[in-house]
Amino acid sequence: MEIERKFLIRKLPDHLEDYPSYEIEQAYLNKEPVLRIRRSKDRYILTMKSGGMLAHEEYEIPMSREAYLHLLPKTDGRIIRKTRYKIPYNEELTIELDIFSGSMEGLIMAEVEFPSIRDAESFIPPDWFGEDVTSNPRYHNVFMAYAGTDRS
Amino acid sequence: MEIERKFLIRKLPDHLEDYPSYEIEQAYLNKEPVLRIRRSKDRYILTMKSGGMLAHEEYEIPMSREAYLHLLPKTDGRIIRKTRYKIPYNEELTIELDIFSGSMEGLIMAEVEFPSIRDAESFIPPDWFGEDVTSNPRYHNVFMAYAGTDRS
Repeated sequence: MEIERKFLIRKLPDHLEDYPSYEIEQAYLNKEPVLRIRRSKDRYILTMKSGGMLAHEEYEIPMSREAYLHLLPKTDGRIIRKTRYKIPYNEELTIELDIFSGSMEGLIMAEVEFPSIRDAESFIPPDWFGEDVTSNPRYHNVFMAYAGTDRS
Repeated sequence: MEIERKFLIRKLPDHLEDYPSYEIEQAYLNKEPVLRIRRSKDRYILTMKSGGMLAHEEYEIPMSREAYLHLLPKTDGRIIRKTRYKIPYNEELTIELDIFSGSMEGLIMAEVEFPSIRDAESFIPPDWFGEDVTSNPRYHNVFMAYAGTDRS
């Protein structure tokens, strides 16, 4: 089970360029359950997710570039592209800061994954975080992929 | 992890009509990793499978009929249709006997799922079983779906 919270960002953290980052490209074959393909650096991953906002079941299987390219034309809506920065928050938690590009240029979001629901609920965001959008489906990547496009 | 063996069938067991059975329809969006949609009675299931013949990782998520119908046109190759009979073998094991229809009419196979690799290896098939095709990819449904078709 994955437990995570999502936030909009008030301002970028200082020295962003000092943190490790990589490009992510992802697209969806289905909304509910979520069926997603993702390229992350040179890794290609097939993911299924069921249910829930804060907590949900998520299964991942690595795949070849060939499989990724076979599935890409079967996706719906937009292909999402973003640069992900990995920013350590404390000894347990890492902030994933996503800076979107392409048709979603301008959007910046942060995600934090927690070891338990209790940890998720007691999390105190850093001052550069903005609104908590964990339970707002508009800020889920799958919603953004399908929103305002004809490729449904 | 799923551990299973597959067999061809020499002859049908007696009184087949006494065992519970249901129709299965399934098709594939990708070969490796396997990405499958299945309708089984009124249940719709999305499945991902990775690797191996005897043992492999398998993840399943239930979906709606609407999701199934959204994914069906994205599938490759043949749609596989079969009637599955559930035949108790002993207190632990159930034989799944599949009688194929449509373009694979005439094919009959049995699958047995085991709690451990040890159980799988020590299994003594009933006399109506034929060749063990566990490690023959030609008898995997995914191979049959893709074989001899242009919809690849």
